[in-house]
Amino acid sequence: MKQFINAKETLVTEAIDGALRTSGGRLARLDGYPHIKVVVRTDWARSKVALVSGGGSGHEPSHAGFVGQGMLTAAVCGDVFASPSVDAVLAGILAVTGPAGCLLIVKNYTGDRLNFGLAAERARAFGVSVNMVVVDDDIALPNLPRARGVAGTLFVHKVAGALAEAGANLEAVTNAANQVIDGVVSIGMSLDTCTVPGSPKEDRIPDGKAELGLGIHGEAGVEQVDFKGARQAIEMMVDRLAPTIEAGPHVALLNNLGSATSLEMSLLVEELLNSRLGSQITHLVGPAPMMTSLDMHGFSISLLPLEGQMLANLEADASPHAWPGCNKISNVTVLPLPDGLTPIQPMPSKNAKAEKLIRRCCEILIAAEGDLNVLDAKSGDGDTGSTLATASRALIKALDRLPLADWTQLYRAIGLELSQTMGGSSGVLLAIFFTAAGDASASGLDVVTALKAGLMRIQQVGGANPGDRTMIDALAPALEALSHGLSAAAIAARKGADQTASITRAKAGRASYISESHLAGHNDPGAEAVARLFEELFQTVAALDK
Amino acid sequence: MKQFINAKETLVTEAIDGALRTSGGRLARLDGYPHIKVVVRTDWARSKVALVSGGGSGHEPSHAGFVGQGMLTAAVCGDVFASPSVDAVLAGILAVTGPAGCLLIVKNYTGDRLNFGLAAERARAFGVSVNMVVVDDDIALPNLPRARGVAGTLFVHKVAGALAEAGANLEAVTNAANQVIDGVVSIGMSLDTCTVPGSPKEDRIPDGKAELGLGIHGEAGVEQVDFKGARQAIEMMVDRLAPTIEAGPHVALLNNLGSATSLEMSLLVEELLNSRLGSQITHLVGPAPMMTSLDMHGFSISLLPLEGQMLANLEADASPHAWPGCNKISNVTVLPLPDGLTPIQPMPSKNAKAEKLIRRCCEILIAAEGDLNVLDAKSGDGDTGSTLATASRALIKALDRLPLADWTQLYRAIGLELSQTMGGSSGVLLAIFFTAAGDASASGLDVVTALKAGLMRIQQVGGANPGDRTMIDALAPALEALSHGLSAAAIAARKGADQTASITRAKAGRASYISESHLAGHNDPGAEAVARLFEELFQTVAALDK
Repeated sequence: MKQFINAKETLVTEAIDGALRTSGGRLARLDGYPHIKVVVRTDWARSKVALVSGGGSGHEPSHAGFVGQGMLTAAVCGDVFASPSVDAVLAGILAVTGPAGCLLIVKNYTGDRLNFGLAAERARAFGVSVNMVVVDDDIALPNLPRARGVAGTLFVHKVAGALAEAGANLEAVTNAANQVIDGVVSIGMSLDTCTVPGSPKEDRIPDGKAELGLGIHGEAGVEQVDFKGARQAIEMMVDRLAPTIEAGPHVALLNNLGSATSLEMSLLVEELLNSRLGSQITHLVGPAPMMTSLDMHGFSISLLPLEGQMLANLEADASPHAWPGCNKISNVTVLPLPDGLTPIQPMPSKNAKAEKLIRRCCEILIAAEGDLNVLDAKSGDGDTGSTLATASRALIKALDRLPLADWTQLYRAIGLELSQTMGGSSGVLLAIFFTAAGDASASGLDVVTALKAGLMRIQQVGGANPGDRTMIDALAPALEALSHGLSAAAIAARKGADQTASITRAKAGRASYISESHLAGHNDPGAEAVARLFEELFQTVAALDK
Repeated sequence: MKQFINAKETLVTEAIDGALRTSGGRLARLDGYPHIKVVVRTDWARSKVALVSGGGSGHEPSHAGFVGQGMLTAAVCGDVFASPSVDAVLAGILAVTGPAGCLLIVKNYTGDRLNFGLAAERARAFGVSVNMVVVDDDIALPNLPRARGVAGTLFVHKVAGALAEAGANLEAVTNAANQVIDGVVSIGMSLDTCTVPGSPKEDRIPDGKAELGLGIHGEAGVEQVDFKGARQAIEMMVDRLAPTIEAGPHVALLNNLGSATSLEMSLLVEELLNSRLGSQITHLVGPAPMMTSLDMHGFSISLLPLEGQMLANLEADASPHAWPGCNKISNVTVLPLPDGLTPIQPMPSKNAKAEKLIRRCCEILIAAEGDLNVLDAKSGDGDTGSTLATASRALIKALDRLPLADWTQLYRAIGLELSQTMGGSSGVLLAIFFTAAGDASASGLDVVTALKAGLMRIQQVGGANPGDRTMIDALAPALEALSHGLSAAAIAARKGADQTASITRAKAGRASYISESHLAGHNDPGAEAVARLFEELFQTVAALDK
């Protein structure tokens, strides 16, 4: 079994009950499981024309998903791909039909025609007014006088539903349904067959091929065609559809036959609108799964001319969530990019002390490149040293244009430089560190406290805390100790970095995917870089002081 | 290529444009394709807290599908399964954020955290108020301190969206988002891997297995488990979820990961509600695709405790159609079957002439059984004779309880008998014929005209017309001629039946699928039956007249 079902015999009744329990009380079913599977509106007073449709299951959300205000009054569900029985249809008719009568909306498949047809006769024998319309929108077989009924049926449900809801009489509702049926054309395409529950999947469509002109019961398409992409697929379908429609505006219904992704369906909209029929398509229903064929990886296009009250009825309110609405096609609205994406470069300024400090930091990290790479090779891809060295070299080159006299601007500028020159997660994290420190400095915090604010921010964004075997294990104690001088900071950083060698269960970063034995005994390269930075800085300052 | 796309490089931008063109003008995008893919609300005055989310594409309808009133203000879309750039996120923030500030809703993946995090810093440098929350609802890896963010994110979008729409300030919106994040837990299961555009499909999950505890990027589940059906699948997931939640009412979110069918998803609702967690689940969001993983054949369950204003915020109006609503769970309402399914048996009555006529008709058809079977074997499954003979035998047995003295009742009763004793399409069609004739007779038509009304009805229901190689080819001319006597009817029926031998392109019924060479030279068995009936009846009557 490759489906989330229990058994094919109970699939449909279990699914209907699941749908009913989440309908918010808007739907009920008739007694009579397993043979009679009829879903009805609960908010129905039999005062208007009832609309009853149905057929085999496997086309969800058709038909039960379209029961509700403004669409169907009842859906009669058969087993998967099997017409419901005469008794089931009759039960549906009698359960919802009042003096205004009932319209049966039937897709042109022999079983459905006969079972709905006989049920209609038996209902009439009770004095119930019943009309029946047969939808035959499929144009895949142009010479077959009995075209199949496929996704265009949704237009019938919606238009007839809007009129019935508005109180039109049975004749008017029937005429409107027949007007839709006269006008609507559909064609489908698929890249794969559907999986019928309980049956092995037929592997009928080879790679590079698609089936064009298929029904909704897994039957083979009229022909297998070469498949070269979405644009050409739409072109082939448009070639079939174009000769069957008149000039003038149309509404298109783009139906997901099952498992086409949302990305594909949206892209197909774009291709359809860009096709030679695009200028005639003023409105679209979908894309959405409406008349599916189980999990078929395909879609269908239906077209309906927009004459008279058609559009108003398609746009009228309808409560079933499965109805995706009828939307007017518009051009894509493109808004200009906001200002600020190109950061304002700060005015350069001079400060010999700051320049010396930064240059020395960069030199320290450049010198550590090889060692840090070796260390990183134990737990990562061996590039921590190179990443830091590359960024350091870039920063040295940038010294001339940095706002060295203003710590707030300087932190922000370093953050910006690092975000542009340093790759990987560490580049982003250090950019966040310095940018946040700049913000903190701007709000009046002193230079060291501002760096602590930067540390807090990278802990939040990166999700790492002390003890997680990252550079934070050295940086956090160093910043904490910095108020006691550079010596204290260097000692704290070294202690923190060395402790990472005994942290064998990394909780963040790439090292979290490495086995413990590979980590034991080696310092985390980021923490080691921080320790070296503070140690060397202290030695530099100490040497100057001598 | 096995997808409806043109090229993986243009997939996302084409899909976004397709979605925008059918948004009814409610959505726009920022300039900056292909690198900056940001979808924004057009009905947005920057007067409230902006909600910005996003991440890699391939999770549709997340995230652009949830942009709209009551949910997201902007969605920042990366390429398939790839985090968007810092610039793209920053563009999204700056495009929609006003004085009330902005909340970033980020799923716990390193790329998203870093890129959204740095964009937030850069936005703050402009004086923009930006908060960021990180969703980590996945419980698949209980020991991993950095759980992934999956479908539970939808709860955050909805709750924060409702509050922001209601005018809450950034702190209140952030706190509500964090409250959701603290409470929500999720787990997923799949029967198949997803198909990443441009990559071959990985065939990782063997038959009979499922993956439990998967993310939304096609990564392998935490474990492969035996798959024995929907019920047991839900049980396994409930076993993981149950220890992670507290007592009290919860809302469940049932998310289709891609290509599970609507039938499966509805059935999973039923299983979830019948599970040991069912009594704690008072509301449900879905089932629907909300946070998909392309075409993955799987689903996820998310649970959120319903405390404080949580339910009100989940139930608040939201315009994005992709949000399926939050529905209260109810029991299935089962309505009694309507009266009339067990047809009222007419009062038997006597009429020697009618009884003799019916008995003779039945005898004629019983005698023709073998011949008609042979004829049917040319174009069908060789059972026309047996079907008619079986029904005839049953009708003879029923003569005692037929209302023989009342033609209206008699026609209807024969229709009923045939619908119950005669299989296949022909049984239904003859039942419709007699039932419709009964109705016509009830409305005052004479016996022969009533039969013509029956004929019209089976033409409408069955879709066959004269010339289509069916029994109508004999029945229609016979009924037409019947007013001139039985002799004329018999001659007309025979002529019509014989003409079917030259109709080699059947337009209805099973013969329409048979090649022309198989049909040529053989009468249609249904038409032949009608011809024999009238011929033999005429001879019987003529013999009586002698």
